[in-house]
Amino acid sequence: MTRVWFTEELYPFARISLNVRQILADEKSPYQHIQVFDTDRFGRVLVLDGIIQVTEFDHAAYHEMMVHIPALAVGNPKRALIVGGGDGAALKQVLRYPSIEEVVVCELDERVIEICRKFFPSFAPAWEDKRVNVNIGDAFEYLQKAPESSFDLILSDSTDPIGIAENLFSKEFYRLIVRALTPEGAAACQCDQPDFNPELVRRLYETAAKLVKNPAYYWALMPSFVGGAIGMMYLSNKPWQDGLKTPYPPGENEYLNPEIHRAAFALPEHFKRTMNITSDSKRAFHT
Amino acid sequence: MTRVWFTEELYPFARISLNVRQILADEKSPYQHIQVFDTDRFGRVLVLDGIIQVTEFDHAAYHEMMVHIPALAVGNPKRALIVGGGDGAALKQVLRYPSIEEVVVCELDERVIEICRKFFPSFAPAWEDKRVNVNIGDAFEYLQKAPESSFDLILSDSTDPIGIAENLFSKEFYRLIVRALTPEGAAACQCDQPDFNPELVRRLYETAAKLVKNPAYYWALMPSFVGGAIGMMYLSNKPWQDGLKTPYPPGENEYLNPEIHRAAFALPEHFKRTMNITSDSKRAFHT
Repeated sequence: MTRVWFTEELYPFARISLNVRQILADEKSPYQHIQVFDTDRFGRVLVLDGIIQVTEFDHAAYHEMMVHIPALAVGNPKRALIVGGGDGAALKQVLRYPSIEEVVVCELDERVIEICRKFFPSFAPAWEDKRVNVNIGDAFEYLQKAPESSFDLILSDSTDPIGIAENLFSKEFYRLIVRALTPEGAAACQCDQPDFNPELVRRLYETAAKLVKNPAYYWALMPSFVGGAIGMMYLSNKPWQDGLKTPYPPGENEYLNPEIHRAAFALPEHFKRTMNITSDSKRAFHT
Repeated sequence: MTRVWFTEELYPFARISLNVRQILADEKSPYQHIQVFDTDRFGRVLVLDGIIQVTEFDHAAYHEMMVHIPALAVGNPKRALIVGGGDGAALKQVLRYPSIEEVVVCELDERVIEICRKFFPSFAPAWEDKRVNVNIGDAFEYLQKAPESSFDLILSDSTDPIGIAENLFSKEFYRLIVRALTPEGAAACQCDQPDFNPELVRRLYETAAKLVKNPAYYWALMPSFVGGAIGMMYLSNKPWQDGLKTPYPPGENEYLNPEIHRAAFALPEHFKRTMNITSDSKRAFHT
């Protein structure tokens, strides 16, 4: 059978290709190239500037882990900020918490929201929720102007550390996030494939450790991403383990369960070495 | 920069490509097409019939997890059998145990051993060890003739469930493995990417559950494999948790540590559902 392939070129040394049954959207917005494909195994796939962002098949791993790890540690989040997240998948998870009063989605590119509302029907209803406040614009600027301690949950659901999102992987951006967090709040930031970019992770972890009491790096299995994993930086004065005691919000988990919650913080030995985490340093990397 | 790419076509819906700096070996043996490439990020890579088997970059995840999870549960393994494993990477890990008296490597294709001895210098010294007994031939037939209870550690380090290794993913092969295991022995069998082949895993898990008291499925992060993970079936009357108490053998781990040991058995919620494992069934899938 002859197949059509989309090939991602994020890393110079490894590529992933997904078969394409149909090209559902393909346009250039003022900010980026937006594509939506229908595929055999991964369902619908959002691609921005040639990089896979979310698939119907494995979105739960990414978005459940990004949202619930900090949200469960907070316990009863009230005001949430999502940086990026124009696909609506993180938003859907945040809205599961009855305690949530407001979610600000700070997305640079309005067309991403419009296109995803059309082609990802399982995320689309989230945008109708009255607690949602969409802010089209630059998240860096938004956070510079945001009052201190204004959110108890912040999620950086950004694209990768190249191009338009590069400044979302900086010391200054982490400082702005922590400034906007309440003292008992928690954040999670998309933080690359752990094996492919350990130096970036180390630099951001060192930054995080200067800003909050209980930083930690954790990861989820993402078969649609080259390298198979996505890492996230947890930023909070509360330890992530506080979340182990919190009941899950209404709705069904596809990826997260109590074993996965703990397992996500287990890091391979070579990675701990790169990060200068020894077995004596139990602060962030010990389950 | 123009690059040369090798593309794996194991699954019809997703492909991984690694850049190739140099083709070090490329020949057809009586059994398969054997290739060794040098790459930028993954070092040297062994490819059999177009499928990535092992890379210098991430072999530790696969082979430490395949060998040490059952070996630590056994405690002091004496006689080991490796099915396949012609690259020598599993052998190297088995030989770390001072208790090991003999390792039989049952590899179908002698040329894999010869080529890997030449191009994977970090695994090659293992073949010089006097405890190693190489048996060139079919593992299925070898196990049919092997005396009962003749090994306390068996590792099925095979190629994938297509082509020449298809019968190594069968009920009958699992029965032969358990027949050759001592009652206190343990085995681990390569068992596919969990997200891409859950039905195969379910079928083999059900088979395993009829043969041993404490079967379990576990996995390791493998960025060089499409889908990013490799699953393994643990077959033993002893629970894998027995291995948590055993000291590591001499030599350095690159991937395994106590947190990873536990985390490997944490399975995503959707996968537990496919496997018919509920949170009430704590036998195999609870850490």
